[in-house]
Amino acid sequence: MTGFPTAPDKQALEHGAALAPRFDTNGLVAAVATDADSGEVLMFAWMNPEALAKTLETGEAHYWSRSRGELWHKGATSGQIQQVVEARIDCDQDCVWLKVRPQGDGGACHTGARSCFYRVIEDGVLVERS
Amino acid sequence: MTGFPTAPDKQALEHGAALAPRFDTNGLVAAVATDADSGEVLMFAWMNPEALAKTLETGEAHYWSRSRGELWHKGATSGQIQQVVEARIDCDQDCVWLKVRPQGDGGACHTGARSCFYRVIEDGVLVERS
Repeated sequence: MTGFPTAPDKQALEHGAALAPRFDTNGLVAAVATDADSGEVLMFAWMNPEALAKTLETGEAHYWSRSRGELWHKGATSGQIQQVVEARIDCDQDCVWLKVRPQGDGGACHTGARSCFYRVIEDGVLVERS
Repeated sequence: MTGFPTAPDKQALEHGAALAPRFDTNGLVAAVATDADSGEVLMFAWMNPEALAKTLETGEAHYWSRSRGELWHKGATSGQIQQVVEARIDCDQDCVWLKVRPQGDGGACHTGARSCFYRVIEDGVLVERS
Protein backbone atom coordinates (compact mmCIF):
# COMPACT_ATOMS: atom_id res chain seq x y z
CA MET A 1 0.00 0.00 0.00
CA THR A 2 1.28 3.42 -0.88
CA GLY A 3 -1.88 5.39 -0.18
CA PHE A 4 -0.94 6.86 3.16
CA PRO A 5 -3.60 8.98 4.88
CA THR A 6 -3.24 12.61 5.90
CA ALA A 7 -3.59 13.30 9.61
CA PRO A 8 -6.74 15.39 10.17
CA ASP A 9 -5.21 17.51 12.94
CA LYS A 10 -2.12 18.03 15.08
CA GLN A 11 -3.28 15.64 17.79
CA ALA A 12 -3.66 12.84 15.26
CA LEU A 13 -0.35 13.74 13.62
CA GLU A 14 1.58 13.67 16.88
CA HIS A 15 -0.25 11.05 18.90
CA GLY A 16 -2.53 9.08 16.61
CA ALA A 17 -1.87 5.46 15.70
CA ALA A 18 -2.14 6.16 11.97
CA LEU A 19 1.02 6.36 9.92
CA ALA A 20 0.34 9.62 8.07
CA PRO A 21 3.67 10.82 6.65
CA ARG A 22 3.88 14.48 5.67
CA PHE A 23 5.44 14.20 2.24
CA ASP A 24 6.91 17.53 1.14
CA THR A 25 6.18 19.44 -2.06
CA ASN A 26 8.48 17.00 -3.87
CA GLY A 27 6.50 14.07 -2.46
CA LEU A 28 9.30 13.02 -0.11
CA VAL A 29 10.02 12.47 3.56
CA ALA A 30 13.53 12.46 5.04
CA ALA A 31 15.06 9.19 6.20
CA VAL A 32 17.96 8.58 8.57
CA ALA A 33 19.55 5.14 8.84
CA THR A 34 21.58 4.19 11.89
CA ASP A 35 23.50 1.00 12.59
CA ALA A 36 21.20 -1.06 14.81
CA ASP A 37 24.16 -2.33 16.80
CA SER A 38 26.59 0.58 17.07
CA GLY A 39 24.06 3.43 16.86
CA GLU A 40 26.27 5.18 14.28
CA VAL A 41 24.42 7.32 11.75
CA LEU A 42 25.09 5.61 8.42
CA MET A 43 23.30 7.75 5.87
CA PHE A 44 20.66 10.34 5.15
CA ALA A 45 18.29 9.92 2.21
CA TRP A 46 14.73 10.45 1.01
CA MET A 47 11.64 8.31 0.63
CA ASN A 48 8.59 8.71 -1.57
CA PRO A 49 5.43 6.80 -0.63
CA GLU A 50 6.50 3.76 -2.65
CA ALA A 51 9.94 3.63 -1.00
CA LEU A 52 8.42 3.84 2.46
CA ALA A 53 5.79 1.22 1.66
CA LYS A 54 8.40 -1.14 0.17
CA THR A 55 10.64 -0.68 3.19
CA LEU A 56 7.84 -1.61 5.56
CA GLU A 57 6.65 -4.52 3.40
CA THR A 58 10.02 -6.11 2.73
CA GLY A 59 12.03 -5.21 5.82
CA GLU A 60 14.78 -3.89 3.55
CA ALA A 61 15.48 -0.18 3.19
CA HIS A 62 14.22 1.45 0.01
CA TYR A 63 14.79 5.11 -0.77
CA TRP A 64 14.02 7.54 -3.55
CA SER A 65 17.08 8.48 -5.53
CA ARG A 66 16.73 12.17 -6.32
CA SER A 67 19.76 12.11 -8.64
CA ARG A 68 18.48 9.15 -10.65
CA GLY A 69 14.79 9.92 -10.22
CA GLU A 70 13.92 6.34 -9.35
CA LEU A 71 13.11 3.93 -6.56
CA TRP A 72 16.35 2.81 -4.92
CA HIS A 73 16.52 -0.58 -3.26
CA LYS A 74 19.64 0.10 -1.22
CA GLY A 75 22.21 -2.61 -1.85
CA ALA A 76 20.53 -4.13 -4.89
CA THR A 77 23.71 -3.58 -6.89
CA SER A 78 26.32 -3.00 -4.13
CA GLY A 79 25.19 -5.84 -1.87
CA GLN A 80 24.81 -3.33 0.98
CA ILE A 81 21.22 -4.37 1.67
CA GLN A 82 19.93 -2.77 4.86
CA GLN A 83 17.86 -5.12 6.97
CA VAL A 84 15.47 -3.02 9.00
CA VAL A 85 15.45 -3.89 12.69
CA GLU A 86 13.15 -1.05 13.69
CA ALA A 87 11.44 1.85 11.93
CA ARG A 88 10.37 4.99 13.76
CA ILE A 89 8.78 8.27 12.72
CA ASP A 90 9.11 11.67 14.34
CA CYS A 91 6.56 13.91 16.00
CA ASP A 92 5.43 15.74 12.87
CA GLN A 93 5.85 12.69 10.64
CA ASP A 94 8.26 14.15 8.13
CA CYS A 95 11.27 12.02 9.01
CA VAL A 96 11.71 8.26 9.27
CA TRP A 97 14.45 6.70 11.41
CA LEU A 98 15.56 3.22 10.39
CA LYS A 99 17.75 1.07 12.63
CA VAL A 100 19.42 -1.26 10.16
CA ARG A 101 21.93 -4.08 9.81
CA PRO A 102 23.96 -3.47 6.65
CA GLN A 103 24.69 -6.63 4.66
CA GLY A 104 27.43 -7.29 2.10
CA ASP A 105 30.63 -5.58 3.13
CA GLY A 106 28.79 -3.83 5.98
CA GLY A 107 29.16 -0.39 4.45
CA ALA A 108 26.57 2.20 3.52
CA CYS A 109 28.46 4.86 1.56
CA HIS A 110 29.29 4.90 -2.13
CA THR A 111 32.76 6.24 -1.26
CA GLY A 112 33.61 2.95 0.43
CA ALA A 113 33.29 4.34 3.94
CA ARG A 114 31.13 2.43 6.40
CA SER A 115 29.12 5.57 7.14
CA CYS A 116 28.52 8.57 4.90
CA PHE A 117 29.48 10.72 7.89
CA TYR A 118 33.20 9.95 7.74
CA ARG A 119 34.26 13.56 8.30
CA VAL A 120 34.30 15.59 11.49
CA ILE A 121 34.04 19.38 11.33
CA GLU A 122 36.91 20.68 13.45
CA ASP A 123 37.73 24.40 13.59
CA GLY A 124 35.79 24.81 10.37
CA VAL A 125 37.82 22.19 8.53
CA LEU A 126 36.87 18.65 7.59
CA VAL A 127 38.90 15.78 9.02
CA GLU A 128 38.28 12.20 7.91
CA ARG A 129 37.75 9.95 10.90
CA SER A 130 35.82 6.70 11.28
CA MET B 1 31.38 33.38 9.05
CA THR B 2 28.40 32.36 6.99
CA GLY B 3 30.02 32.58 3.57
CA PHE B 4 30.65 28.91 2.95
CA PRO B 5 32.44 28.01 -0.27
CA THR B 6 31.11 25.76 -3.01
CA ALA B 7 33.16 22.65 -3.73
CA PRO B 8 34.65 22.93 -7.24
CA ASP B 9 34.22 19.24 -8.03
CA LYS B 10 33.13 15.88 -6.66
CA GLN B 11 36.58 15.02 -5.31
CA ALA B 12 36.68 18.24 -3.29
CA LEU B 13 33.10 17.73 -2.15
CA GLU B 14 33.70 14.20 -0.92
CA HIS B 15 37.32 14.30 0.19
CA GLY B 16 38.45 17.91 0.46
CA ALA B 17 39.15 19.60 3.77
CA ALA B 18 36.85 22.52 2.97
CA LEU B 19 33.45 22.66 4.61
CA ALA B 20 31.33 23.37 1.53
CA PRO B 21 27.72 22.55 2.43
CA ARG B 22 25.32 22.00 -0.44
CA PHE B 23 22.41 24.18 0.63
CA ASP B 24 19.25 23.25 -1.28
CA THR B 25 17.01 25.55 -3.31
CA ASN B 26 15.55 26.79 -0.01
CA GLY B 27 19.04 27.56 1.26
CA LEU B 28 19.01 24.72 3.77
CA VAL B 29 20.89 21.57 4.70
CA ALA B 30 19.40 18.75 6.76
CA ALA B 31 20.54 18.21 10.33
CA VAL B 32 20.26 15.15 12.55
CA ALA B 33 20.93 15.38 16.28
CA THR B 34 21.77 12.28 18.28
CA ASP B 35 22.36 11.91 22.00
CA ALA B 36 26.15 11.86 22.40
CA ASP B 37 25.89 9.31 25.18
CA SER B 38 23.06 6.95 24.20
CA GLY B 39 23.31 7.33 20.41
CA GLU B 40 19.53 7.81 20.21
CA VAL B 41 18.33 10.00 17.36
CA LEU B 42 16.74 12.99 19.08
CA MET B 43 15.49 15.17 16.25
CA PHE B 44 15.66 16.09 12.61
CA ALA B 45 15.73 19.73 11.53
CA TRP B 46 17.20 22.17 9.03
CA MET B 47 20.04 24.66 8.98
CA ASN B 48 20.64 27.72 6.86
CA PRO B 49 24.19 29.07 6.60
CA GLU B 50 23.72 31.28 9.67
CA ALA B 51 22.41 28.38 11.79
CA LEU B 52 25.34 26.18 10.80
CA ALA B 53 27.85 28.96 11.42
CA LYS B 54 26.33 29.79 14.82
CA THR B 55 26.35 26.12 15.79
CA LEU B 56 30.04 25.80 14.98
CA GLU B 57 30.94 29.12 16.62
CA THR B 58 29.03 28.65 19.87
CA GLY B 59 29.04 24.89 20.34
CA GLU B 60 25.27 25.01 20.81
CA ALA B 61 22.86 23.71 18.17
CA HIS B 62 21.13 26.32 16.06
CA TYR B 63 18.59 25.43 13.39
CA TRP B 64 16.39 27.23 10.90
CA SER B 65 12.74 27.10 11.86
CA ARG B 66 10.82 26.64 8.62
CA SER B 67 7.48 27.16 10.39
CA ARG B 68 8.55 30.42 12.04
CA GLY B 69 10.92 31.49 9.28
CA GLU B 70 13.66 32.42 11.73
CA LEU B 71 16.93 31.34 13.29
CA TRP B 72 16.22 28.89 16.09
CA HIS B 73 18.63 28.61 18.98
CA LYS B 74 17.40 25.28 20.27
CA GLY B 75 16.57 25.54 23.96
CA ALA B 76 16.64 29.33 24.16
CA THR B 77 13.09 29.28 25.52
CA SER B 78 12.66 25.63 26.61
CA GLY B 79 16.04 25.29 28.30
CA GLN B 80 16.77 22.28 26.10
CA ILE B 81 20.07 23.73 24.89
CA GLN B 82 22.04 21.17 22.88
CA GLN B 83 25.75 21.22 23.67
CA VAL B 84 27.55 19.94 20.59
CA VAL B 85 30.10 17.24 21.35
CA GLU B 86 30.91 16.51 17.71
CA ALA B 87 29.70 17.75 14.32
CA ARG B 88 30.01 15.66 11.17
CA ILE B 89 28.96 16.12 7.57
CA ASP B 90 28.10 13.46 5.01
CA CYS B 91 29.74 12.53 1.74
CA ASP B 92 27.84 14.97 -0.46
CA GLN B 93 27.69 17.66 2.24
CA ASP B 94 23.94 18.09 2.39
CA CYS B 95 23.40 16.70 5.88
CA VAL B 96 25.00 17.57 9.21
CA TRP B 97 25.12 15.11 12.10
CA LEU B 98 25.39 16.62 15.57
CA LYS B 99 26.21 14.52 18.62
CA VAL B 100 24.74 16.56 21.45
CA ARG B 101 24.16 16.66 25.19
CA PRO B 102 20.68 18.09 25.81
CA GLN B 103 20.50 20.46 28.78
CA GLY B 104 17.51 21.51 30.86
CA ASP B 105 15.15 18.60 31.33
CA GLY B 106 17.21 16.52 28.89
CA GLY B 107 14.48 16.42 26.26
CA ALA B 108 14.49 17.49 22.63
CA CYS B 109 10.86 17.29 21.51
CA HIS B 110 8.15 19.91 21.90
CA THR B 111 5.70 17.12 22.83
CA GLY B 112 7.63 16.49 26.04
CA ALA B 113 9.24 13.30 24.78
CA ARG B 114 12.99 12.94 25.13
CA SER B 115 13.31 12.19 21.42
CA CYS B 116 11.02 13.25 18.58
CA PHE B 117 11.11 9.62 17.44
CA TYR B 118 8.88 8.29 20.21
CA ARG B 119 6.82 6.11 17.87
CA VAL B 120 7.71 2.78 16.31
CA ILE B 121 6.03 1.72 13.06
CA GLU B 122 4.70 -1.79 13.68
CA ASP B 123 2.52 -3.55 11.12
CA GLY B 124 1.76 -0.17 9.61
CA VAL B 125 0.55 1.29 12.90
CA LEU B 126 2.30 3.72 15.23
CA VAL B 127 3.10 2.60 18.76
CA GLU B 128 4.54 5.01 21.30
CA ARG B 129 7.65 3.59 22.91
CA SER B 130 10.68 5.29 24.44
